[in-house]
Amino acid sequence: MTEQDIYEAAIQLVAKARGKLEVCCKVGAANLEELSIAYTPGVAAPTRAVAADKSLQYQYTARASMLAIVTDGTAVLGLGNVEPEAAMVVMEGKGVMLKHFAGVDPVPLCLNTTDPEQIISIIKAIEPSFGFIFLEDIAAPRCFAIEERLGRELNIPVFHDDQHGTAIAICAGLTNVERLSGVPLASKRVVINGAGASAIATANLLFELGVTNITMCDSKGVLSASREDLNPYKRRVIERSSAANKAGNLGEAMRGADVFIGLSRANLVSQEMVRSMAPQATVFALANPDPEILPTAAQQAGAKYTGSGRFDFPNTVNNLLAFPGIVKGAISAKAKHITMAMKVAAVKAIAGYVTDEELSATYLLPNALDMNLPNRVAEKVAEAAAL
Amino acid sequence: MTEQDIYEAAIQLVAKARGKLEVCCKVGAANLEELSIAYTPGVAAPTRAVAADKSLQYQYTARASMLAIVTDGTAVLGLGNVEPEAAMVVMEGKGVMLKHFAGVDPVPLCLNTTDPEQIISIIKAIEPSFGFIFLEDIAAPRCFAIEERLGRELNIPVFHDDQHGTAIAICAGLTNVERLSGVPLASKRVVINGAGASAIATANLLFELGVTNITMCDSKGVLSASREDLNPYKRRVIERSSAANKAGNLGEAMRGADVFIGLSRANLVSQEMVRSMAPQATVFALANPDPEILPTAAQQAGAKYTGSGRFDFPNTVNNLLAFPGIVKGAISAKAKHITMAMKVAAVKAIAGYVTDEELSATYLLPNALDMNLPNRVAEKVAEAAAL
Repeated sequence: MTEQDIYEAAIQLVAKARGKLEVCCKVGAANLEELSIAYTPGVAAPTRAVAADKSLQYQYTARASMLAIVTDGTAVLGLGNVEPEAAMVVMEGKGVMLKHFAGVDPVPLCLNTTDPEQIISIIKAIEPSFGFIFLEDIAAPRCFAIEERLGRELNIPVFHDDQHGTAIAICAGLTNVERLSGVPLASKRVVINGAGASAIATANLLFELGVTNITMCDSKGVLSASREDLNPYKRRVIERSSAANKAGNLGEAMRGADVFIGLSRANLVSQEMVRSMAPQATVFALANPDPEILPTAAQQAGAKYTGSGRFDFPNTVNNLLAFPGIVKGAISAKAKHITMAMKVAAVKAIAGYVTDEELSATYLLPNALDMNLPNRVAEKVAEAAAL
Repeated sequence: MTEQDIYEAAIQLVAKARGKLEVCCKVGAANLEELSIAYTPGVAAPTRAVAADKSLQYQYTARASMLAIVTDGTAVLGLGNVEPEAAMVVMEGKGVMLKHFAGVDPVPLCLNTTDPEQIISIIKAIEPSFGFIFLEDIAAPRCFAIEERLGRELNIPVFHDDQHGTAIAICAGLTNVERLSGVPLASKRVVINGAGASAIATANLLFELGVTNITMCDSKGVLSASREDLNPYKRRVIERSSAANKAGNLGEAMRGADVFIGLSRANLVSQEMVRSMAPQATVFALANPDPEILPTAAQQAGAKYTGSGRFDFPNTVNNLLAFPGIVKGAISAKAKHITMAMKVAAVKAIAGYVTDEELSATYLLPNALDMNLPNRVAEKVAEAAAL
């Protein structure tokens, strides 16, 4: 199918089905007996039981698997701030993925507020109905503060997929580059283009995996200590990095780099820029739908390992590799928080899912549609949660 | 089944199914093509379309049928303030009814706040994800202010079922007493015991139907103008009523009354009190599961028309008669508000659903499990919405 065919099919699909999600009954209500049991007066018995012991809510209601997909619609796909109404299309799509691959019950909550304090207070108020809070498409830097606060103040896991789903998938790919090449990831000089939610999270996860030399660029060029327009999250990346962080543009930053990670916009990287990188370079150009540079073009310019966000090239670096297993693992472990150890476990589980026989420069990552992958990731995430 | 059997079955049911609701996909995601259409990159097309024209959200997402069941858990069944965790059991039960009888997609949102301002602000913030806000089991008088404000400030319908569902079912029953007896409802002397959400709403709907003489009692006795402990909603009932509103107890109020409506607690009405009512009296004793007086006992004491909230006696006065049709009608008419005209239309549709042949003292109201009833009510409610 051409891209245009897909777009037309996507419109037809949602117009015909009126969206993608529905709420269904797991119990009957067709006759008086069923109604008496499912509703009144029967409902009083489990209600009284939960009122006396709140922990029973996880047994007697769907709470454990109920997952709120919360967005303010400010950073949707490559489209930016589309507002909550349009964001619901994407949240339903994400919901389909979450149901299909993680087996949870996703509820899109598209908020018409962008005030972090109000978003935090809403999510805290709805907590008793949900087992998991899945933040989606909230713009940086607001998303960081929201997730941090909720991580401290909620007793159920909160996960901002744009940050960590992407970071985990990238780190799994780089882990398998290390495995294939024998060159330690920690020794690599990494350039990240983009300084939004996914970029900041990727830098932080790479630091956790031992990488020290990270140069991050935003639309104004390299994040250098001399710049006065940096938010605290960008500033923290500079502080943690051993890179020189000299002022300059992306082209200058990429000279001699081992790894390029693009989380920015289409066509920002030329073959010339790839040629200036170190030998056996890795180029993960993840802008969607059009990457910073096409994998084929990067290879022609000397990149040895390439990845994109697209399913029509090898090495699809997509957060679909990560989030179903994270969600499933956290819920099965009854985790209250998503810890760094759980994210690292997910990285290793995704990378390890590729066997030694399968592993190659064109097969760095598992097939994201493999229904067993979320189970394997969930198992490792749950183990890490229990530690 | 005995009540105990029902309670045991209710516990087993929810424990086995882990609650009563789940979220399901209306579209597939089993292969790359389906995923490309339902998720990325296809999702960008309907997202862009809705971003350009918000009205398309109703065609391209499930919003129209998504219904939030919002509670703070403070006035649940006869159980009172059970808190949001336990309230979720009831909200899921209500959700099953809403799905089964109204065909909507119910999402329980049990809030751990009881602050009206915060509840209002949360509901306003989630508005873009829902086609209908169904308030449930929020204590009076807070529920009135919340519904009033939301009625003004939302662009989707809001309906507090405990108030209006009950009021509509009662008024439909009384309308059919009028039809059967030929005595105008408007001429009746009505006593309402209870002054909570459903009682206040019932009084207001009765006033709308032409009744003038209403005496309301709360746990301290008759609401009389001399009392200084009355909230504005109770006070307004006194102001609108032509009754004497003399201080006194329930027994005194019931003397000579034509209609008793019980929305209070078990066993508060004796046969003696029913005997003191006017001839051919109506006794709707709706406390659940144990009524103010059993219908059989009321009949022995001379009541001609009786009703209860229970399904094991004739004339079940249950809000299940009303809310599915109201919800369905409002959504099909794309109504922005639930107006008094829509409530009155529901009263007439429910009453009129009983044919002249069927109508009798033991068949004042339709069978609430009749799957055609919501359609008939919806039709009339939608007509009233369009006026």
